[in-house]
Amino acid sequence: MNLVLFHPGEYGAAERVARLPKGDARAEHLFKVLHVREGQAFRAGVANGASGLARIEGEEGACWRIRCAFDRPAEARPRVDILLAMPRPKALPRILEDLAALSFGTLWLFAASKTRGAYGTSHKAEAAAVEAAVWAGLQQGRHTRVPEVRTLEGLSLGALPLAEYAARLVAHPTEEASLPLLQSLRGLPAAARVLLAIGPEPGWTDGELKRLFCRHFLPFSLGPAPLRTHAAAVALLSALQLHLG
Amino acid sequence: MNLVLFHPGEYGAAERVARLPKGDARAEHLFKVLHVREGQAFRAGVANGASGLARIEGEEGACWRIRCAFDRPAEARPRVDILLAMPRPKALPRILEDLAALSFGTLWLFAASKTRGAYGTSHKAEAAAVEAAVWAGLQQGRHTRVPEVRTLEGLSLGALPLAEYAARLVAHPTEEASLPLLQSLRGLPAAARVLLAIGPEPGWTDGELKRLFCRHFLPFSLGPAPLRTHAAAVALLSALQLHLG
Repeated sequence: MNLVLFHPGEYGAAERVARLPKGDARAEHLFKVLHVREGQAFRAGVANGASGLARIEGEEGACWRIRCAFDRPAEARPRVDILLAMPRPKALPRILEDLAALSFGTLWLFAASKTRGAYGTSHKAEAAAVEAAVWAGLQQGRHTRVPEVRTLEGLSLGALPLAEYAARLVAHPTEEASLPLLQSLRGLPAAARVLLAIGPEPGWTDGELKRLFCRHFLPFSLGPAPLRTHAAAVALLSALQLHLG
Repeated sequence: MNLVLFHPGEYGAAERVARLPKGDARAEHLFKVLHVREGQAFRAGVANGASGLARIEGEEGACWRIRCAFDRPAEARPRVDILLAMPRPKALPRILEDLAALSFGTLWLFAASKTRGAYGTSHKAEAAAVEAAVWAGLQQGRHTRVPEVRTLEGLSLGALPLAEYAARLVAHPTEEASLPLLQSLRGLPAAARVLLAIGPEPGWTDGELKRLFCRHFLPFSLGPAPLRTHAAAVALLSALQLHLG
């Protein structure tokens, strides 16, 4: 945890004070893992709001009273959104945590043709796990902007705001990596947004690729090795962010 | 599993036949997950040797007899070696698997100043787990070159073949990403090798960074977000491979 993220309801902007319940996992982590003491500064922020330094002032009833000196404005909306084939349920929290640590805007989960049938339904039940994973990632990567995670029925491209994206990319391993395409992203305007589609581990079907190409998705590859979804998603998002600058 | 990797002892080069014991996990995966039938081609290769297509011919005693038509020569030694601070024991197999899927030459594990004491010892007991993870990664990423995983006593840079590396990089998140440094790697000769040092999640100490800088390691960053070791290692290795070409 490299930043303690408060819910807006935990932060009083007028008095510049946050309150964390004493048993809260973030408070426990501050004391037991980071060994923060009263009066010692640590990084903190408010979800979708400002961030900066904070100090524990002391107890206040069932809470820790935390004095905040937030001097960084709220983060801009991240420039990359993601369309991700449902991974194995066990892998989803880890993927969301690491992608949130890198930061993204919206992530749509969909059942690809080669996605196993059971994946979709088990995810829907796990909204709390999704939120916990996203929150952990934000605190790991020192981000305050909370990304959205949504579920699509299949590859329903019509449900996406495709016109918003200056570039639409579909990840697909090929012998030759797409370095020139990555480098061309630096020519985009500073606010231009990118949509990255990541298929299931067994790959896209020809029909899915055709549908994506029809909507002007460009094939995008980091090289020939087929990676597990987690590794692919992290490597792809990181490469995009590096080249978007 | 995108390539079935045989041990050299499982492959008869003269007769171009491999034999897998019937209960072997690779045989089980071929039949039950990939639904490969007798006579149907799949990708395979020999550890540190050739690769290409293979077909199950039938049973031979307690084994499956597999006819191999390997037309790809052995892979060249990967150009990136890694110096990695001991991660949490639970995270190590996943990290090794995904790094092996990307491919690397040698990985040295070391206990950094901020590594928890218990990590080192528990790893040494797990040579079989390390080998299984590496093997799984190679079969995921379609590689045949088996990387080496070794353990160092602390950050003993004197034990490393530093003179072999045309570039030595130390990963360290900073506000500004090292895109110019990455781009400069394209100017290296085709066989030039790179050593990438990745610290523990709480970061390098000033003393460790000084020692690395003295040995001409250059600071290398993908951006400001501190990532978990797994995500950092995957993103860094992938970025290096992309730019080494």
